[in-house]
Amino acid sequence: MSKNLTKRAEDYSKWYNELVVKADLAENSGVRGCMVIKPYGYAIWEKMQAELDRMFKETGHQNAYFPLFIPKSYFSKEASHVDGFAKECAVVTHYRLKTGEDGKIEVDPDAKLEEELIVRPTSETIIWDTYRGWIQSYRDLPILVNQWANVVRWEMRTRLFLRTAEFLWQEGHTAHATQTEAIAEAEQMMNVYADFAENFMAIPVIKGVKSANERFAGAIETYCIEALMQDGKALQAGTSHFLGQNFAKAFDVKFANQEGKQEYVWATSWGVSTRLMGALVMTHSDDNGLVLPPNLAPIQVIIVPIYKGDEQLAAISEEAKQLMARLRKLGISVKYDDRTTHKPGWKFNEYELKGVPVRIAIGPNDLANGTFEVARRDTLTKETILSADIVSHISDLLEEMQKDMFTKALAYREEHITEVNSFEEFKEVLENKAGFVSAHWDGTPETEEKIKDLTKATIRCIPLDRKEEAGSCVFTGAPSKGRVLFARAY
Amino acid sequence: MSKNLTKRAEDYSKWYNELVVKADLAENSGVRGCMVIKPYGYAIWEKMQAELDRMFKETGHQNAYFPLFIPKSYFSKEASHVDGFAKECAVVTHYRLKTGEDGKIEVDPDAKLEEELIVRPTSETIIWDTYRGWIQSYRDLPILVNQWANVVRWEMRTRLFLRTAEFLWQEGHTAHATQTEAIAEAEQMMNVYADFAENFMAIPVIKGVKSANERFAGAIETYCIEALMQDGKALQAGTSHFLGQNFAKAFDVKFANQEGKQEYVWATSWGVSTRLMGALVMTHSDDNGLVLPPNLAPIQVIIVPIYKGDEQLAAISEEAKQLMARLRKLGISVKYDDRTTHKPGWKFNEYELKGVPVRIAIGPNDLANGTFEVARRDTLTKETILSADIVSHISDLLEEMQKDMFTKALAYREEHITEVNSFEEFKEVLENKAGFVSAHWDGTPETEEKIKDLTKATIRCIPLDRKEEAGSCVFTGAPSKGRVLFARAY
Repeated sequence: MSKNLTKRAEDYSKWYNELVVKADLAENSGVRGCMVIKPYGYAIWEKMQAELDRMFKETGHQNAYFPLFIPKSYFSKEASHVDGFAKECAVVTHYRLKTGEDGKIEVDPDAKLEEELIVRPTSETIIWDTYRGWIQSYRDLPILVNQWANVVRWEMRTRLFLRTAEFLWQEGHTAHATQTEAIAEAEQMMNVYADFAENFMAIPVIKGVKSANERFAGAIETYCIEALMQDGKALQAGTSHFLGQNFAKAFDVKFANQEGKQEYVWATSWGVSTRLMGALVMTHSDDNGLVLPPNLAPIQVIIVPIYKGDEQLAAISEEAKQLMARLRKLGISVKYDDRTTHKPGWKFNEYELKGVPVRIAIGPNDLANGTFEVARRDTLTKETILSADIVSHISDLLEEMQKDMFTKALAYREEHITEVNSFEEFKEVLENKAGFVSAHWDGTPETEEKIKDLTKATIRCIPLDRKEEAGSCVFTGAPSKGRVLFARAY
Repeated sequence: MSKNLTKRAEDYSKWYNELVVKADLAENSGVRGCMVIKPYGYAIWEKMQAELDRMFKETGHQNAYFPLFIPKSYFSKEASHVDGFAKECAVVTHYRLKTGEDGKIEVDPDAKLEEELIVRPTSETIIWDTYRGWIQSYRDLPILVNQWANVVRWEMRTRLFLRTAEFLWQEGHTAHATQTEAIAEAEQMMNVYADFAENFMAIPVIKGVKSANERFAGAIETYCIEALMQDGKALQAGTSHFLGQNFAKAFDVKFANQEGKQEYVWATSWGVSTRLMGALVMTHSDDNGLVLPPNLAPIQVIIVPIYKGDEQLAAISEEAKQLMARLRKLGISVKYDDRTTHKPGWKFNEYELKGVPVRIAIGPNDLANGTFEVARRDTLTKETILSADIVSHISDLLEEMQKDMFTKALAYREEHITEVNSFEEFKEVLENKAGFVSAHWDGTPETEEKIKDLTKATIRCIPLDRKEEAGSCVFTGAPSKGRVLFARAY
């Protein structure tokens, strides 16, 4: 297998597009902006789903399912929400096709819907319309519900995983009796996302809140986790919104409190999407292909025989099968590739491209010496391990790689947070070093907008753990109480 | 909790509609024909999904994801396919909303799609358009892919789970080098479905093939599993289609065989949907509510304390918690309901309504005697079990209930297959006894159509295990080689 993969240093964007296709993660479909997620890519997404779903359930959430379609009138009820999504909606207007006079299939003009339906770009409106029937008293609260679903946002410029017209995601929608409880929920889910990103995806993230410009349409506060890709661009990896009573008011959802008084319900929503697949690729992978963290790799260990003739293959296969059985007992996902149609070198390349964390090669010398050749994908290093040690070695190695990948990404991220104190410096860092630029800001949307127009950088977040530090805005010089993180972003 | 559930004998259809809502399985949404699947209903669906997904993977299939939208032109390429689905399609024609002059949100007429997009009613066309890029040689075959997705069919008369405009399903789409292999795949998946229906849902099914009238639009042969509901109506519980080379020809998908010759690829597709939830409810439930087979019950055992005062509650809770821990060790899903806001009688009713298979009550006498009161949901019988025996008893009981529910449903089904030899008898059985009517048929679509017009009964299947038996068609008197099963169906 020839990889012919563009080098990151040559063209990072091209490298990404090629890698996603060549590693069999996804491809463009015949439908503008919509992708096909291929089995290998989907297997990674399934592992992500399983972990997230477990985390949601451990924090008391249940799954449910709400309609794909949202009547246009629902959509219009929360003003800032419709402003945010109206420009990129797929709209269903008819419910039938017919064969025209020329024998061609056409939309039947007699089958026009009375009210147009929007293909959900997010489900706050249809869900809060439903919650009205579920909530009467404080005893019905909280409602802690999540949905795994597809959503559609008619983006004009699309890229596999990062920005597609249709994508897969989960959206949590919770209802609470008090503001305090709703804020605690929104913060909790941001922390769940951060835990998932760091401990499963091996991606370090910065927790923070969004500025008004970058807030979700309809939210009072948007909590987020922000990651940094290898090209120095930021990527929003998950958001959790405190929605106040906005949707409860728009859909008239009240509850009787303990004193019997009617109050509006408090809301949150939170989501992560197949976009995370893009973040995973761009954080860890290299010029040889994918590098997958062991915790999310569909195949953690690949075993490749190196042999001449059937007799050697049989002896190696015997050894490989015993090793597989022992590794599987520890819950390690392992595959043995004894295809006779491909050479070992071809297989090495293929599994490197696909990011399989550990490769074990077994040749005649290994058989004679009771050894295995073990290669790790992240560092591309090899060592020879004695048969007696192999199982514990692999088990330890997978843990070590998971940690090392995080540490490496964290070191890169730390090197790429730069404090600046003038706008000249700001621009200089963005151009020559990229990454997060930590700067004072006067807190106004206007200044953020101007900086964005001039530099394409936006405020990625106001970090939750920022220090109080008196300063002056890097752009206007107005007073500021602390630094925020700017970056160019996906 | 007052159930106020209509009795099955009074109005079976009303009983079903009420039960689905009252047991918190699903409800109608504000979008015509689209349902909300509530957390309790979704938890059952998740258990179904998990088992089916495991079975698919064990038979070599992988999951993937294809676009929600299908360009109208794709849809038109397979003639009988478009005939089958054109009349019930949701069509996306625009991609933007705007605020009109009156301040109202409206569809932006300037954002009309060049080609309309159909919301998938099934995905053969978009998938075979994709497979063209995946298949060059026999080495690329077979492709064994499944997708979990939502689909939309614009049904005019809808009922929760049984017939909804949007529903959730899985659709397998496989590609093969030979006809023999594709037929074997279609048969295998029918058998997987039958295994699932019988061993997890406790629903006996008849395996067969559909007559031409009832075949999937675009299939050469449709294999099916047919179940019988308690009102004597049949329900198609799953279908598996041998598609021949129809879609390969429509989308020009060829492969080079071992001799290097180009051939069209052979196809299958197979699916089950949230319709199975309806079958589950209608097969087992009774006038007190749901009856769930232990293998699919989100909560298998509910423990309810019966007490006066905090001291008794504390002692019972101690006992209950120990029991929970012991049951959970065996993988049994158990919940302890110690809410002080509701009385035991209310709780008994609620868990009966929700079909929890086993209820354990613990009162002061039980504490004194070292016993538990165990009630089973399917038979509504109770017995007193010694503490020493409780864990093994519950474990055995769950297995026994799973078997008993199947046996009971099977006995009902067997009593409701009636052989008839005249059309008078045919109509008489349909009217007074219902169920499957086993009759000779001349094999023509015309006769089936006429019988349907006169009786509303269709051929549910030609059973795979039917005996050869010379006879004459119950309607035309023309010769027939064996009996087929007619029924009125959901």
